[in-house]
Amino acid sequence: MSRIALVTVGDELLNGAVVDTSTAWLGDQLALEGHTLVLSISVQDDLSAISDAILAAVARADAVIVAGGLGPTSDDLTRLGVARAARVEVEQRSELVELISARYAARKIQVPSQALVMADLPVGANALTNNSGSAPGIFMDIDSVPLFALPGVPHEMRDMFIGEVLPELRKRFSGAHQYTVIVRVSLLGESTVSERLRDWESKLPLGVSVAYLASLGDVEVKISASNAEQAHEYATLAAGLIGDSIYAIDESRVPRSTLASTVLHLLGKEGATLATAESLTGGGLAQLLTDIPGASDVYLGGAVTYQAGSKNQLADVPKELMSSRGTVDAQVATAMARGIRLRLNSTWALSTTGVAGPGDFEGHPAGTLYVGISSPAGERAFKVVLTGQMADDRARVRGASAAHALDLLRRCIAGLPIGAQASFITEE
Amino acid sequence: MSRIALVTVGDELLNGAVVDTSTAWLGDQLALEGHTLVLSISVQDDLSAISDAILAAVARADAVIVAGGLGPTSDDLTRLGVARAARVEVEQRSELVELISARYAARKIQVPSQALVMADLPVGANALTNNSGSAPGIFMDIDSVPLFALPGVPHEMRDMFIGEVLPELRKRFSGAHQYTVIVRVSLLGESTVSERLRDWESKLPLGVSVAYLASLGDVEVKISASNAEQAHEYATLAAGLIGDSIYAIDESRVPRSTLASTVLHLLGKEGATLATAESLTGGGLAQLLTDIPGASDVYLGGAVTYQAGSKNQLADVPKELMSSRGTVDAQVATAMARGIRLRLNSTWALSTTGVAGPGDFEGHPAGTLYVGISSPAGERAFKVVLTGQMADDRARVRGASAAHALDLLRRCIAGLPIGAQASFITEE
Repeated sequence: MSRIALVTVGDELLNGAVVDTSTAWLGDQLALEGHTLVLSISVQDDLSAISDAILAAVARADAVIVAGGLGPTSDDLTRLGVARAARVEVEQRSELVELISARYAARKIQVPSQALVMADLPVGANALTNNSGSAPGIFMDIDSVPLFALPGVPHEMRDMFIGEVLPELRKRFSGAHQYTVIVRVSLLGESTVSERLRDWESKLPLGVSVAYLASLGDVEVKISASNAEQAHEYATLAAGLIGDSIYAIDESRVPRSTLASTVLHLLGKEGATLATAESLTGGGLAQLLTDIPGASDVYLGGAVTYQAGSKNQLADVPKELMSSRGTVDAQVATAMARGIRLRLNSTWALSTTGVAGPGDFEGHPAGTLYVGISSPAGERAFKVVLTGQMADDRARVRGASAAHALDLLRRCIAGLPIGAQASFITEE
Repeated sequence: MSRIALVTVGDELLNGAVVDTSTAWLGDQLALEGHTLVLSISVQDDLSAISDAILAAVARADAVIVAGGLGPTSDDLTRLGVARAARVEVEQRSELVELISARYAARKIQVPSQALVMADLPVGANALTNNSGSAPGIFMDIDSVPLFALPGVPHEMRDMFIGEVLPELRKRFSGAHQYTVIVRVSLLGESTVSERLRDWESKLPLGVSVAYLASLGDVEVKISASNAEQAHEYATLAAGLIGDSIYAIDESRVPRSTLASTVLHLLGKEGATLATAESLTGGGLAQLLTDIPGASDVYLGGAVTYQAGSKNQLADVPKELMSSRGTVDAQVATAMARGIRLRLNSTWALSTTGVAGPGDFEGHPAGTLYVGISSPAGERAFKVVLTGQMADDRARVRGASAAHALDLLRRCIAGLPIGAQASFITEE
């Protein structure tokens, strides 16, 4: 287990222009490999700030990653910052001049003289190959600590990390490598999940470890071991203890399983199709489903019925039903699902109606959700009362409602019981 | 203009569990005030790491903000880290014991003994009021540099920053304060926007400044001056030079105007209503519209027609039209808009059809978008060819398509010309 420090470079990281996603991505990748990101420093495009941060990182870690500041413009100062920290000069490398020139030639553009600054490397450094952009990376030791400087553009950074940094880290820190399997759990609190694994966790053999990552309505349990077989074996054991709130077991982060991809997969296996009718989630279910490439094999489409009128016009909800019971209602949810299923002739249909807030609606508090499900096996409706952080604000209510609707559909398709979830759920 | 450093505390920031949004939010807020965030350090829940980072920050900045690690559990170490950096002990404050106990009493819960650790403060520190959570913040000088320690929970951090830190920064750095007006520009490249302002910018009086923040399809131009009148005056001048790609001028960041809120506002003023029919954007338009509280005053709902069948069943697109022309087609886009407008009896309707990718569809490359608009004034269809970063991947194509569709609708409602945008757009 080695300690890694990260230095990210760029004014845009500090002036509010950009939310930094690279730190979380690298932290996750490093954790999957058994390393720990112990420190992350973001600095402006400033030579002294860059070299100071590199030296601070080198003093505190077994390896250092730098991201950003490798481009061709005058504010790209990472090459010089690494050189200053290493107390060496930069020199132009003829092989990199050729590489950069060839890249421009392939696009039939004459190489701008400014671009050749990317052929400069600190004396003693090696270049890291950039397969998705022009700027080579830098690899060198500073005070016996390996340092990797990568581009700041996220996809270039990711490609170079996977292709160049990971193999080198595995070589340097042999024995540290571990395999991780991710068990994905929906709508069960992190404390409940860890409670179920507590006894088992206390008896794990050396080299097998468990980590938890919780986000709104979702917990990832990462089971790590020194080889793939062992990681799988223990992931299966953990899954057995956690139970049917598990919706996917992933061997890597990309592509990442989601509740929507799991539902599409379950339906696709049976040759079944799906339609949606959304009030509260307002297109959120449709978007989660159509985010998945190939969704159209299963997902036919749906209605966003944001007013009583459109519930009738697009999903054939009887007007009398709504005038007698209101629109936030279990029977309305069922009628929405039934209506859209008949309209689109889908195998299954899923609906949501409720109150996103801010404020009450038709006497129901924000965080009230009804989910309707219609299928050849019959119709079901559920009331979900969102609580805690899920009910914090409009965006969270909408997001948690979509997760609950998809998880209820998953349970109905798979014939699983309802009611194991974190929220208060009743079948109506 | 003062230099601010930030220390964020928490294992979750470094192990991939959480994408840190606080740094960007604070960087933006500080920039709006005329300060510069020059350094951001993220550390684990480790006492030495916290105090080392605080001392590094104090050495490099005029003021330091710490976020996270103020809760009641054993891994919340920021109180001790601040004390160690300041070379003082912590002491329990009776007024904070009372405050915390009262907070629990109000929820009819007996205060857990562990919670009272939140009443500890470094000797010589003042408490910062937390109106949205239990943990008080910390304010003290270390080596004559003011330090503010805030909770890590984003909404608690934001509330305490606005309520407690900003007034103190204004007091400490009097004269540094500036007023900022944000001019929001859609679908015009940052270089084009800055080109239009270049001459004007070179002649700005002392104290008036311009900054650009670009994100996918959107540029914010921040006009700052030493008083509100001057900021407004220059924002109006800038808006005149940029032209009709401006969709909103905001005086503050919250609530933030979006293309969707602008469209809802334009329609709401006229008492008009809107419906959508989405293929490519798959619910994205509906979600952007229903993200806005009160959307249901204008937005009636719509159809997500993800297959040819549902385009006919929900939006009455003639089957013959699709079999002769395919579904990625200007006439199909128009028919979708017309169909949903008649179904829902809305004043306006907006539709999208195209190719999100990965890969071609019906012979059209990914990034091909058709937008249909139907209104009492007639029907229009547009072809948009997404290029550059907008066509990078499925998620970007979907996001950029939604932005284009909403901007084309905005232009049609307001009677503005089409074609000033960054992408290749033709009216079909």
